[in-house]
Amino acid sequence: MPALDKILQAADENIPAALERLFDLLRIESISTDSAYASECVKAADWLVADLQSMGFAATRRDTSGHPMVVAHTGGTGRHMLFYGHYDVQPVDPLNLWDRAPFDSVIEDTPKGRVIRARGASDDKGQLMTFIEACRVWKSVTGELPGNITILFEGEEESGSPSLIPFLKDNADELRADFALVCDTGLWDADTPTISTMLRGMVTEDFTITAANKDLHSGAYGGPAINPIRVLTRILGTLHDDQGRVTLPGFYEGVPDISADIKAQWDALNFDVETFLGEVDLTTPAGEQGYTPLEQIWARPSCDINGIWGGYTGEGFKTVLPSQASAKVSFRLVGDQDPVAIDVAFRKYITDNLPLDCRVDFRESDGARATNLPVDAPEFTQARQALNDEWPNPAIFAGCGGSIPIVGHFQSILGMDSILIGFALDDDQIHSPNEKYALRSFEKGIRSWIRVLGALT
Amino acid sequence: MPALDKILQAADENIPAALERLFDLLRIESISTDSAYASECVKAADWLVADLQSMGFAATRRDTSGHPMVVAHTGGTGRHMLFYGHYDVQPVDPLNLWDRAPFDSVIEDTPKGRVIRARGASDDKGQLMTFIEACRVWKSVTGELPGNITILFEGEEESGSPSLIPFLKDNADELRADFALVCDTGLWDADTPTISTMLRGMVTEDFTITAANKDLHSGAYGGPAINPIRVLTRILGTLHDDQGRVTLPGFYEGVPDISADIKAQWDALNFDVETFLGEVDLTTPAGEQGYTPLEQIWARPSCDINGIWGGYTGEGFKTVLPSQASAKVSFRLVGDQDPVAIDVAFRKYITDNLPLDCRVDFRESDGARATNLPVDAPEFTQARQALNDEWPNPAIFAGCGGSIPIVGHFQSILGMDSILIGFALDDDQIHSPNEKYALRSFEKGIRSWIRVLGALT
Repeated sequence: MPALDKILQAADENIPAALERLFDLLRIESISTDSAYASECVKAADWLVADLQSMGFAATRRDTSGHPMVVAHTGGTGRHMLFYGHYDVQPVDPLNLWDRAPFDSVIEDTPKGRVIRARGASDDKGQLMTFIEACRVWKSVTGELPGNITILFEGEEESGSPSLIPFLKDNADELRADFALVCDTGLWDADTPTISTMLRGMVTEDFTITAANKDLHSGAYGGPAINPIRVLTRILGTLHDDQGRVTLPGFYEGVPDISADIKAQWDALNFDVETFLGEVDLTTPAGEQGYTPLEQIWARPSCDINGIWGGYTGEGFKTVLPSQASAKVSFRLVGDQDPVAIDVAFRKYITDNLPLDCRVDFRESDGARATNLPVDAPEFTQARQALNDEWPNPAIFAGCGGSIPIVGHFQSILGMDSILIGFALDDDQIHSPNEKYALRSFEKGIRSWIRVLGALT
Repeated sequence: MPALDKILQAADENIPAALERLFDLLRIESISTDSAYASECVKAADWLVADLQSMGFAATRRDTSGHPMVVAHTGGTGRHMLFYGHYDVQPVDPLNLWDRAPFDSVIEDTPKGRVIRARGASDDKGQLMTFIEACRVWKSVTGELPGNITILFEGEEESGSPSLIPFLKDNADELRADFALVCDTGLWDADTPTISTMLRGMVTEDFTITAANKDLHSGAYGGPAINPIRVLTRILGTLHDDQGRVTLPGFYEGVPDISADIKAQWDALNFDVETFLGEVDLTTPAGEQGYTPLEQIWARPSCDINGIWGGYTGEGFKTVLPSQASAKVSFRLVGDQDPVAIDVAFRKYITDNLPLDCRVDFRESDGARATNLPVDAPEFTQARQALNDEWPNPAIFAGCGGSIPIVGHFQSILGMDSILIGFALDDDQIHSPNEKYALRSFEKGIRSWIRVLGALT
């Protein structure tokens, strides 16, 4: 495809101007969690609308009860793709840990190569600009914007996306596409592009066990009076067996084996467990036996006690025999595990194991199924091939240990699957001081989108 | 003993004047925990010194770095007995829950009889005055104070007794006696006097288990990274077996069976477990199987988790995989259980059960052996008989689920055992609003001491 080569060449020549535009966007302090920066969020949205309009998009700012959305259409025909990114950024504190002003971006030389240093460089302004710049050079070379593309930029991703669900529902017909392209994830490593195709789901539980109607003194009651902390530890202490498997009845229903193809891809990554765990001072994978650590994170369910509390927890000692003990427990789900069934099984497990005189109160629980994207669809094959053509190593279909809410919302509200492609690196320090985006991520990100657009539109 | 009958008769006639004196003492706001009341503590000590001097005691106020002690001697000969009480009282807040001014005492009629209503009426001014009034009427009838008695009143019992140990050490020769008489405990019930002879000891443990060097996200690490809360619950969850016994190796070494005589006394009490547990909304004794609830509290060791904490414990949910989990655990000891050995065994138990990548840090632990008073000594038999003569039911040798620090200090510093006799009732509301002391406790308390003095001096 000679046109593609021309577009890629134009992309390389476009980089200095593209960086100037990215720096302009990075200078806008669009922190969504702090209402003092609300006008900066509007400014970022307006900047994006103006930029998209300047290259021919039908772009509008769409106000919400929170920060505005930006929606833009190429108006072309063919396979309809929705591109998603977010223009809001995390707060910058602690400011004293930044080596330079967080919104005053420059290119820095580092031992690992040149980087764009700024809040939002990687999460997500740098990433969303890779797509905008891809569209721009596409237009400049071909005279037309690529195919049938809708763009959706959100300004509340870092603050819980309160306006997102209503906006998707209110504008479903406009936004529904054949696939979404979501650019908010990372590369496996600097040479290996990644399409995240399995995202773990979740069930959260939050409960309190109550025994006596008040705190007692262990001198007066220690022995005959049941201690709810003891009950809680006994119940939670048996929630895993010696093989690291969750003992909840029925928990593994719907947990699939991964395919030989995926397993081969993952094994070929030579995941460096030693470094992964070593960075947090651990040495030994502690998860479900019989599975590699990567499988444990990406393809196996897990259960963690995220919080526990009861009795006296201050300085010194009080021999209180407490009335209550509480815990927060969460399950990460894969495959077809049913969050409702697991919620029911967990509550039954706790209730069935309560001794006399104890009761349990469950606070609101929450759940979401795992997301399994259709890797056998031609769009996935085409996108993967496009990435293979750009990067040194072939692209992998990866798992993701946590959920990415936007993917679930696109599925449940718009009936649309997402292709998750991003160019962030593990050391980008997103949400932390000195956030950066590799210049190479920006350059090859633009080239990657040109290739993906060539393959999908 | 005709003299005894005369003294008892004089005691009854003395009650109106005795109450006026008690009301004087109760009016002094000797709250030891609040430095704003320090001068009131001095005032109470001076009041006691003056009162004891007025009846012929060699009484002095002995200043300390905290509130003063009061020491007084009869100067007689024979068996030397040290009487202990405390003149300080608990704070009165919440004041709005009092039905009348806490220090303005009156006699109130209640459905259960006449009571002396005031802060300190039961704990411990009313109780210590039973002994002073016994001495006063003894002197008034016989012309002499009873035998060889030393009195020690403390003013810091409600605030941790910081001056007590140095004072006992500095004045050991003056204070050391054959036995102490401690009047700071209660009756079994309104008709049954009690000598507490078995006080449980204690070991406290306070520790933190650490895994990763920082809190992790369960999406990124859930599975391969060990969760210290899970480790903690698994270890603490197996600290008791299904029979409610502590599983710590060697824990039951030194735990004696109670004698048939004591068991018969306790069984005869017909302890009302239903009411005891029912008052705190429990129904079922949860302690060591094979022992009655009274035995579980008085004669069997126990283990309680007094506090547990780790991870996120606030509102809502955070899927944190925490770096640390902590607990406070205490053991109540009986017989010859060795607190040092149990501390060592506990630390070994935790350490031996830690998986790879976890470490435990123990904060300071504390321990004290159980106190087993020599019930076979003639003084105990004589005191018990004296109480039998006064009350409708025979006196019992009781256990006590918690420790009474003064008894341990008298043993360890002065090599002296204590005879614990007191006349408080369970519903006296000590440390709470509307504290009271039954008028009958005051009247029969004075008569009891006259009989005990007759038996022991």
